[in-house]
Amino acid sequence: MRKRILNFNAGPAALPLPVLEQIQEEMLDFKGSGMSILEVSHRSKWFDDVINEAVVRTKSLLNIGDDFHVLFIQGGASLQFCMIPMNLALEGRPVDYINTGTWSTKAIKEAKGLIKDVREIASSEDKGFSYIPKDYNVDEDAAYLHFTSNNTIKGTQWAKFPDGGKVPLISDMSSDFMSRSFDVNPFGLIYAGAQKNIGPSGTAMVIIRNDMLERVPGDLPTMLKYTTFSEKNSMANTPACFVIYTINLVLKWIQETIGGLDKMEQINKEKGTILYDFIDSSGFYKGTAEAGSRSLMNVTFRLPTEELEKEFVAEALKEGLGGLKGHRSVGGCRASIYNATGVEAVNDLVGFMAEFEKKVG
Amino acid sequence: MRKRILNFNAGPAALPLPVLEQIQEEMLDFKGSGMSILEVSHRSKWFDDVINEAVVRTKSLLNIGDDFHVLFIQGGASLQFCMIPMNLALEGRPVDYINTGTWSTKAIKEAKGLIKDVREIASSEDKGFSYIPKDYNVDEDAAYLHFTSNNTIKGTQWAKFPDGGKVPLISDMSSDFMSRSFDVNPFGLIYAGAQKNIGPSGTAMVIIRNDMLERVPGDLPTMLKYTTFSEKNSMANTPACFVIYTINLVLKWIQETIGGLDKMEQINKEKGTILYDFIDSSGFYKGTAEAGSRSLMNVTFRLPTEELEKEFVAEALKEGLGGLKGHRSVGGCRASIYNATGVEAVNDLVGFMAEFEKKVG
Repeated sequence: MRKRILNFNAGPAALPLPVLEQIQEEMLDFKGSGMSILEVSHRSKWFDDVINEAVVRTKSLLNIGDDFHVLFIQGGASLQFCMIPMNLALEGRPVDYINTGTWSTKAIKEAKGLIKDVREIASSEDKGFSYIPKDYNVDEDAAYLHFTSNNTIKGTQWAKFPDGGKVPLISDMSSDFMSRSFDVNPFGLIYAGAQKNIGPSGTAMVIIRNDMLERVPGDLPTMLKYTTFSEKNSMANTPACFVIYTINLVLKWIQETIGGLDKMEQINKEKGTILYDFIDSSGFYKGTAEAGSRSLMNVTFRLPTEELEKEFVAEALKEGLGGLKGHRSVGGCRASIYNATGVEAVNDLVGFMAEFEKKVG
Repeated sequence: MRKRILNFNAGPAALPLPVLEQIQEEMLDFKGSGMSILEVSHRSKWFDDVINEAVVRTKSLLNIGDDFHVLFIQGGASLQFCMIPMNLALEGRPVDYINTGTWSTKAIKEAKGLIKDVREIASSEDKGFSYIPKDYNVDEDAAYLHFTSNNTIKGTQWAKFPDGGKVPLISDMSSDFMSRSFDVNPFGLIYAGAQKNIGPSGTAMVIIRNDMLERVPGDLPTMLKYTTFSEKNSMANTPACFVIYTINLVLKWIQETIGGLDKMEQINKEKGTILYDFIDSSGFYKGTAEAGSRSLMNVTFRLPTEELEKEFVAEALKEGLGGLKGHRSVGGCRASIYNATGVEAVNDLVGFMAEFEKKVG
């Protein structure tokens, strides 16, 4: 079999090899059931154990208790863009958003289609979303404050989360969820498409604080209410069983192989330091995000010319380093170094970058 | 490895063994990409080929052309219950529904929450949904006529689809999609959760006729509009890649191993005949659906007592026949014999049923 490449895709992205190997090994017979995990009923003991384990692992990793629900909802983070205002806005009160790029912009657009008083209280659009805003005033009366914790396209990340005071925070953490520890308590809701740090595509994980569930309007369509999912352990209808199964394996890997979120964060910081230090020391590569706002998940950079960027991406792939092309909306290069990408892979990347510079620079 | 059981689950359900074996074989390296199918970008050539193949196979199997779109939408058939009235109702015109059981009832409930004039033009509730209604009048002015083609819980199925005249038909075909050939042209929309006949759970396939897309209101949330999916080949956001990949493999199996939908239908008829003939010839087992309305996918039956039913299900599992318990809302027994369950498995089931009867009857 051909050697697996080093995968720097932005999402769907690299998964831990031991997780893939376990999926492969038990594909025809899940835990002695005589069935594939793709074939077991979601109402069976087998799947019940899977989803319950995934919930328990999530709560343990995030250090939260029964005041939060962990939900699995299909439709990606994009469906959450409309579910959040539908479920959590409050009559006569504004909702606040901070705009840090493409995904925030989409979330704001969906909210504006549903809610009268949507306030964009801060934005980094003035400098092409290359930084995380520092100055903003949260309306004390706001129903919630929404922000995107990490911006895959522009390569920025909130190092320290905004302070909403008494206003519940809501965050799209699709691209840095489970990459570091943080205090979940100020959050009314956290959501994350699975396909970056915790699994394959096909489900968003939604963590919702119990008091938020009281806001859910009774007259929403069943499948668009958070309560439909919280009341039935995400199984009011058939969930995305295989995705949840894989998420559970990835969470197990974070817990048992890595050793928890503090360790995960430490490794991610180490990877970021290696890559950014190299870029900063080079006159050839140039980071696109401002220094204090840099993402530890998506490292965006440019080469002197677009031709060189094309050559860089193509040459890298030949050497077994894939997914280094920047998002089509901004161009350039991007190395996504999520949880499953180890220190060694980042060292290999830096090695290749140094060699490429020497060759063409 | 333990022998795989014969899987009579209602869904998620049995998948063809060669499909599972292929998934297993290429789990670590999809087509020489050096990545798992779980890790490749949905914007890559690799995944583009997968989704395009799945669409082409669907159109070929159903014998439809460019006047239909084939879409993959997360959230199961249950999300379609609200998307259909949201997208396809017409101002000032009624929508017609035929009620044949649990799933129809849910579809009607969601429509009533969104639309003023929802007409239930026929129902088999008077006899516990044990038959398919024959007498009904479709309002010529109706925006659409909705029905459930096969009823997993009550074990009934439309042998011949209703005639809507000029009114577009809409059907939830979750449990018999791709099990037989039919004329798609009278249908404005067909939807099917994947987890019975075409794949694992985590996506609904939606087939929509182009003229229906003109009805989609502009002000719906982005992820709830059919046009969002039709305009971007189901990739406005990251789709459920692995589910679509598996669907493509199952469709390939129907085309190449089975030989198309006519052949599939022939096999399904043969399986149904074997099982119903046995039940009818037995004084011990009793079918629950009326003769002309019986499902070829979900064969529901009772034993003389509930104790015997429990014993039957437990004994069967010991012999390697799983999933024979009826739906929790109705009790009894049920053998789901979808596409992936072959004639041999049905013969084995009948053999076991005969033996069990001899032992305890």
